[in-house]
Amino acid sequence: MSKDGKISDSVIRRLPRYYRFLGELLEENTAKISSAELSKRMKLTASQIRQDLNCFGGFGQQGYGYNVAELREEIGKILGLDKCRKAILIGAGNLGTALALHINFHKSGCVLLGIFDSNKKIVGQDLGGLKITDIGQLGDFCKEYSPEIAILCTPKSSAKELCDKLIDLGVKSFWNFSHYDLNLEYEGKDIVVENVHLGDSLLTLTYRTNNR
Amino acid sequence: MSKDGKISDSVIRRLPRYYRFLGELLEENTAKISSAELSKRMKLTASQIRQDLNCFGGFGQQGYGYNVAELREEIGKILGLDKCRKAILIGAGNLGTALALHINFHKSGCVLLGIFDSNKKIVGQDLGGLKITDIGQLGDFCKEYSPEIAILCTPKSSAKELCDKLIDLGVKSFWNFSHYDLNLEYEGKDIVVENVHLGDSLLTLTYRTNNR
Repeated sequence: MSKDGKISDSVIRRLPRYYRFLGELLEENTAKISSAELSKRMKLTASQIRQDLNCFGGFGQQGYGYNVAELREEIGKILGLDKCRKAILIGAGNLGTALALHINFHKSGCVLLGIFDSNKKIVGQDLGGLKITDIGQLGDFCKEYSPEIAILCTPKSSAKELCDKLIDLGVKSFWNFSHYDLNLEYEGKDIVVENVHLGDSLLTLTYRTNNR
Repeated sequence: MSKDGKISDSVIRRLPRYYRFLGELLEENTAKISSAELSKRMKLTASQIRQDLNCFGGFGQQGYGYNVAELREEIGKILGLDKCRKAILIGAGNLGTALALHINFHKSGCVLLGIFDSNKKIVGQDLGGLKITDIGQLGDFCKEYSPEIAILCTPKSSAKELCDKLIDLGVKSFWNFSHYDLNLEYEGKDIVVENVHLGDSLLTLTYRTNNR
């Protein structure tokens, strides 16, 4: 896929943006786009875009521009959107509920197989077409279905213990909203973590508001 | 605050992380920390940390380390957490509800003053201590309370129109979850935007899961 197998973190982070922008172009019936025009829309330099796409073998022809549909499909393949990884969600509180209903898992190369919570009051309720399952059944569920991705919407206090358990059960990827930075302990253990700190994003906005 | 008034985006993005980590250290009753130890925890080089903090005038003494409480307080001041900016939330669906209940606005230098939605079925309901208000009253509300920050949890289709309206009503900062990249049009108009694309974060995880 890449020439040396080492793609920088910042390039990887831009891939979903490329994918999203190209999707918007398709919706606007734009069939071709120059790297200059794409760079204007994405607020990246044209040379940056060429460099990024070259990491994955390069697309487009000099002076001709990019075929939007083809480029989007290729980036989708690179992202692995055709793979359909099995995911579970732990914690069906407000944030977990929002994610279960708000995120298009299928379009993100995942399928949400199970939702777990420890709150007996909501166990058994439907959430986006799945029944909320008692957290006590997590082990049996993982043995049966082997989910690869866990979405953690639990309180910070239970995140570490839960993560250890899930790793024992074979989960390798964590989309972590628990306010607990998981990557600190699991480095080098073949575990993939994406920590999301919505509070950090608001603090960044606050700073910018104050220093406009 | 900064020496030349130009702080790079990446430094600004790290400030909330510093603030969060220092808060965790305080919870662990750690009074002092060396830049080496802080760098280990934060996965930044010690020199990077010194450089970052020097942007804001520098803290700590060579060979002595940082006073955790003091450094945290200073970063809090830089972030403007003492300012208490007035915020409103538009769109009280699942994601808006999660944010209203999940985010500690006060600790982020904001106060959430109003929640708006166009759905008559939920208008009048309580959400985290605020009554959901009909979107039709947005103009009057803004004239009376002059909110500075708007949190957009609306569908992509209505985001642009809503944003134009809010700018006319004096809103200058947007925390935008609407899947519509606002900054493209408002550049140079003294508008601050923080676009949050949760889907991009999941796609990044998907890529890493596939390329572990």
